[in-house]
Amino acid sequence: MKQHFFHAYPAINHALSEVNQLINDRITIKNSQLHDALQQMASNGGKYLRPAFFLLFANINKSAADEQAKLVKIAASLEILHMATLIHDDIIDDSPKRRGAVSIQAAFGKDTAVYSGDFLFTVFFDLLVETMSSSPYLTRNAKTMRKILTGELGQMDNRFDLDQSLLDYYRNINGKTAAIFSLAAEEGAYFGHADHHTINLAKRIGQNIGISFQILDDILDYSGDERLNKPVLEDLATGVYSLPLLLALQDHRSKLEPFLTKKHQMTVQDMEQVQEIVISCGGVEQAKIIAEKFTKKAQDEIQSLPNTRARKLLATMAKKLLTRVN
Amino acid sequence: MKQHFFHAYPAINHALSEVNQLINDRITIKNSQLHDALQQMASNGGKYLRPAFFLLFANINKSAADEQAKLVKIAASLEILHMATLIHDDIIDDSPKRRGAVSIQAAFGKDTAVYSGDFLFTVFFDLLVETMSSSPYLTRNAKTMRKILTGELGQMDNRFDLDQSLLDYYRNINGKTAAIFSLAAEEGAYFGHADHHTINLAKRIGQNIGISFQILDDILDYSGDERLNKPVLEDLATGVYSLPLLLALQDHRSKLEPFLTKKHQMTVQDMEQVQEIVISCGGVEQAKIIAEKFTKKAQDEIQSLPNTRARKLLATMAKKLLTRVN
Repeated sequence: MKQHFFHAYPAINHALSEVNQLINDRITIKNSQLHDALQQMASNGGKYLRPAFFLLFANINKSAADEQAKLVKIAASLEILHMATLIHDDIIDDSPKRRGAVSIQAAFGKDTAVYSGDFLFTVFFDLLVETMSSSPYLTRNAKTMRKILTGELGQMDNRFDLDQSLLDYYRNINGKTAAIFSLAAEEGAYFGHADHHTINLAKRIGQNIGISFQILDDILDYSGDERLNKPVLEDLATGVYSLPLLLALQDHRSKLEPFLTKKHQMTVQDMEQVQEIVISCGGVEQAKIIAEKFTKKAQDEIQSLPNTRARKLLATMAKKLLTRVN
Repeated sequence: MKQHFFHAYPAINHALSEVNQLINDRITIKNSQLHDALQQMASNGGKYLRPAFFLLFANINKSAADEQAKLVKIAASLEILHMATLIHDDIIDDSPKRRGAVSIQAAFGKDTAVYSGDFLFTVFFDLLVETMSSSPYLTRNAKTMRKILTGELGQMDNRFDLDQSLLDYYRNINGKTAAIFSLAAEEGAYFGHADHHTINLAKRIGQNIGISFQILDDILDYSGDERLNKPVLEDLATGVYSLPLLLALQDHRSKLEPFLTKKHQMTVQDMEQVQEIVISCGGVEQAKIIAEKFTKKAQDEIQSLPNTRARKLLATMAKKLLTRVN
C-alpha cells in the first residue's frame, strides 16, 4: 500500500502491512497473470483507507490483543470489497488506469475483469464467514454491498441527465462511497467492543467522512489536480454530473446546455469550456463549502468519541484526507 | 419457470412456485426496467433445475414441515447464484439471448449487466445468512462460487488452444457447471437431515449429473438441436473447444487445424465444416458415450439412496434431463 500516508503512525502502518499480507495470501488464483495483477493492485496503489478507518475505530475502545488476527481479517474484507467494486467500476468507465497502473479491464479485457471482481467477492465472503458469522454484521455487509451497487446503478441511470437533483447526487454518492466508510467505522467500533452509543456515532462519522471524501474527489475532476492518478474530467466525459457541475447548472444552465447536450460527442475543447464555466460560476467553490460542512461535522463528532490515542490519529487522518483540496 | 418440466410432479412444482415467488420478492431494485428484466429472467426462462435437485435431496430423508420456508430460501439461493453467473457469462460471451429472451447485457449493456450480477450476489448472500449462518455451508457456498469462477476463468484461458487436454476440459466443466449441482444435492441432503453417508453420496450424484449435463449441452452445440434456445456453434465461434471437438482433435487434428487457426476470422461456412468433421470423426458419438457413463454412474448412485418417493422423482428427473440427446 502507499506507505507514505501512514508512515507517521507505526501502529497503524504495522497493522496495515498485516492486512496487505493477508490480502496477498488470499488472492491465489490459478491464472498467473491475473494473480500478479491482483497482487499488484493490492500492494502498490491503495491507501488502505477503509481498513485504516476500521482499525482506528476498533481501537477507540480497548480491544483484546488476541483479537488482532480477527481485526486484520475484517480490515482486509473491507479493502477486498473495495477492490472488487473498483474492478467492476473500471469496466463501466472503460478506465485505462487504476491506482497509477493499468486497470485489470485494460490489461486483461472486460471478461477477465468481470470474473476478477466476482472472485474477490468470494474472498470477501470467506473473510466475513470466518470472522462474523454469528454477528449481525454479516447481513450489514451484504446490505452495504447492495448499497454500493444501488449507488452505482443510480449514477448510471442519471448519466447525461440535466434535470437530476442534488438529492439524486447525494443518494448516489452515499451509496457508492459513503456506505463502505460508514460500515468500516461502525463495524470497527462494534468489533472493538465499543458501546451502543459509540457504534452509532462511528457509523455517522464514517458516513460524513465518506460524503466529504467523494465531494472532494469530484471537485478534483474540475480543479485539475492530478494527485489521484485519475484523468481529469473523466466523469464529465462519461456523463456523470457531479456536485460542482450540478451547482453550476442551477443558475447557469443556458451557458452549459449547448455543450452538455452533445453528450458523447463532446470534444476535449467542449469539456474544457464546461470546466471553465463550472469554475467561473462558482460551482467548485460552492462544492468546497459543502464538503467542508460534512468535514466539520465529522470532525466535531470525532471529538465526541472517547478520548484515546486512536481518536487523535483519527482526527489527524480525517484532517489530512479531507483538506486535500484546500 | 418452465412449468412443463415439473407439471407431472405437483409437490415439486408447488415448492418451485414458492421459490419463484421468493426470488421475485427479493429482486427489488430501484431501476424499474432492470427490475422487470430480472423478474422476467427469473420467471420465464429457467427450469429451476438446481432448486429442484436441492428440494428432492432435502426430501430424501424426512424434513420437518416447519422447515419448508428455510428450504425454499436455500433453493432460491441456488437459482439466484446461477442467474448471477449467467448474467456475467453473457457479458463474456456477448450473448444476445438468454432463456429465450434478450439477455440483460444485450438489453441494457454490459455495464448494467455487471451490476445486475453483483446485485444478485448480494441477494444470494442475504439468503445464505438468513438460513445457514451457523452451518459449514456458508463457507461451502463461497467455495462453490469460487469454483464456478475458476472454471469460467480456466475456460477463458484455454480459448483457441488446440493443445488443451481433456483434463483441462473436465476441470473447467467441473467448476463452471458441476460444482453448483453438487452443492445443491449436498446441501439438500444436509438440510434435509440426512446422515453423513447420504450427504456424501448426494454430493457425488450432483457432480456426476452436472458433468453429464454439461457434456450433453456441449454436444447440442454440434448436433444442432435448438431446444436449449442457444445459438448452435456459439462455443466454437468464441474459441471454447468442448468435448466433441477435443475428441475429434485427438486423431484428426490435421483436418481441423486449417479452420481452427483462423480463430475469430472463422466464417459460418468454416464453422459448419468443423461441425461436419467433428460429427464424421465420431467426436459427437464418443462424447455421448462418455456422457452416458456419467449418467449411468449418477443413476446407480441414486439407487443407493434411501428408498423414498423423492428418490423415485430424482431418478425420473435425472433420466429426463440426461437422455435428451439420445
